[in-house]
Amino acid sequence: MMNALRIAVVGYGNIGRYAVEAVAAAPDMELAGVVRRSAVTSAEEAKQLADIPVVTDVGQLGQVDVAILCGPTRSIPETAPQYLARGIHTVDSYDIHGESLWRLRADLDAVGKKHGRVAVVAAGWDPGSDSLLRALFLAMAPKGITYTNFGPGMSMGHSVCAKGKPGVRDALSMTIPTGTGVHRRMVYVELEANADLADVTAAIKADPYFAHDDTRVFAVSSIDDIKDMGHGVQMERKGVSGATHNQLFEFRMTINNPALTSQIMVSAARAAARHLQPGAYTLPEIAPMDMLPGDRETLVKTLI
Amino acid sequence: MMNALRIAVVGYGNIGRYAVEAVAAAPDMELAGVVRRSAVTSAEEAKQLADIPVVTDVGQLGQVDVAILCGPTRSIPETAPQYLARGIHTVDSYDIHGESLWRLRADLDAVGKKHGRVAVVAAGWDPGSDSLLRALFLAMAPKGITYTNFGPGMSMGHSVCAKGKPGVRDALSMTIPTGTGVHRRMVYVELEANADLADVTAAIKADPYFAHDDTRVFAVSSIDDIKDMGHGVQMERKGVSGATHNQLFEFRMTINNPALTSQIMVSAARAAARHLQPGAYTLPEIAPMDMLPGDRETLVKTLI
Repeated sequence: MMNALRIAVVGYGNIGRYAVEAVAAAPDMELAGVVRRSAVTSAEEAKQLADIPVVTDVGQLGQVDVAILCGPTRSIPETAPQYLARGIHTVDSYDIHGESLWRLRADLDAVGKKHGRVAVVAAGWDPGSDSLLRALFLAMAPKGITYTNFGPGMSMGHSVCAKGKPGVRDALSMTIPTGTGVHRRMVYVELEANADLADVTAAIKADPYFAHDDTRVFAVSSIDDIKDMGHGVQMERKGVSGATHNQLFEFRMTINNPALTSQIMVSAARAAARHLQPGAYTLPEIAPMDMLPGDRETLVKTLI
Repeated sequence: MMNALRIAVVGYGNIGRYAVEAVAAAPDMELAGVVRRSAVTSAEEAKQLADIPVVTDVGQLGQVDVAILCGPTRSIPETAPQYLARGIHTVDSYDIHGESLWRLRADLDAVGKKHGRVAVVAAGWDPGSDSLLRALFLAMAPKGITYTNFGPGMSMGHSVCAKGKPGVRDALSMTIPTGTGVHRRMVYVELEANADLADVTAAIKADPYFAHDDTRVFAVSSIDDIKDMGHGVQMERKGVSGATHNQLFEFRMTINNPALTSQIMVSAARAAARHLQPGAYTLPEIAPMDMLPGDRETLVKTLI
């Protein structure tokens, strides 16, 4: 029996809460504690965290193998190197695609190698498990097009944008997939007393966030009453294996968003601590079996 | 620009033919040649192989980096070590699950390490890419049930069994998925002149191959007229991420069977020659990105 991995959850927002649950459910991990800027919590949080060490510095938690970084994406480039430099593997769910993600991976690769530690970068579901599937589909049919359709589910960025319009007290923007990577925005707004729905609709539709999509705006009496953490993805690829066309692949999931994100981070923490060489990795750069508990022989016999 | 990988295709049955096509389509590979027991071919084969070196011993092909083993599954345990011992990485699509697969992996792991070479084992689609997806789904929702539903598509084993019954000239057994891992067998038989469909049906249904499944038998005038290399899979998982139940995942594909098998083997050859440490690996033990051509920076920027 291997020693349990000691995990620190850094940040206690939505993702952090679910990460605490995922660590508790992992047979080979124990929660060292939660790191947050302030140890002061609400009454509800105090109850949730009753038996969990909550500290402002990871050094107060004793030995820690992996830090699951649950703070905002923009904090990751500054936070992750600090943990790596202290000899702690990191996992994040950095969620901006493209250039900045490559830069983060390159920076953490250098810091990780210097300190003999592993950083798993962008280990959520998109980027994350969806990226891994895109890589697999490409290996199975190198030519063709992959479409990633998001939703139905809430878009944080679009919701915040709609909420910022004059006359809007609160807003929720749902992303609805209509196939081949095209999305409709269903925007629900809680209006202020004297606001006009037509004006609000025009303001939302004119915003660059929405201008290029089919956008529909609806007034509701309470945003809180319609909030739901559910989300989904449909990925489709039609491609060519060798010289054979029309190979069809489809992946769908319907999931609780923060629960899946934190579970993938926790599974990636296992790969970081048990299997990977020092450096930084995105999810398609990790063997899926390295994210699973249990011995290799049993896994090969039961899972292959 | 890296040197092109030189690939030998070993065996020229169904899979071997498609493997030749997949190597030709790969931007970073060249076909060293085809290895088969006898260089004598039919007129049609002679045309297909006109510009391809066909030899009986891989030593006649000059430098070879990877051998794609396209012979029967039962030949792999004997064939693969010979290539590894000659300093050539191997990829196979060994397709028996369980104990014997683990034994093959363990044996080739030892031989591979001794000779500093890589063996990728069971690199088809099931076992293979389906196994990789089962591992990924388990990392995303560690508790729950994964069902793998095969088809619609031809089952070789069931077809051969039905063909063996008295009065049957030729047979084709289709596997039809009915969900939660349960399958129906649709069996098409070409009868001999004086055979009775009722007798043939009874004989097929009584065979252990069919006895536990819903089996329907139909007489057709020509098996050759209904043969189709298409196959498919539906995988479903409903599971728990952390403490959150009812996470739903589904994967479907509809594919040409030998084209996909050989494409996955060719993609795995790239991982073997470019990325993996000596030893043996099943597909879930390989990072999907290691199966793709192109530099890491471009892949991370475009695929993640």
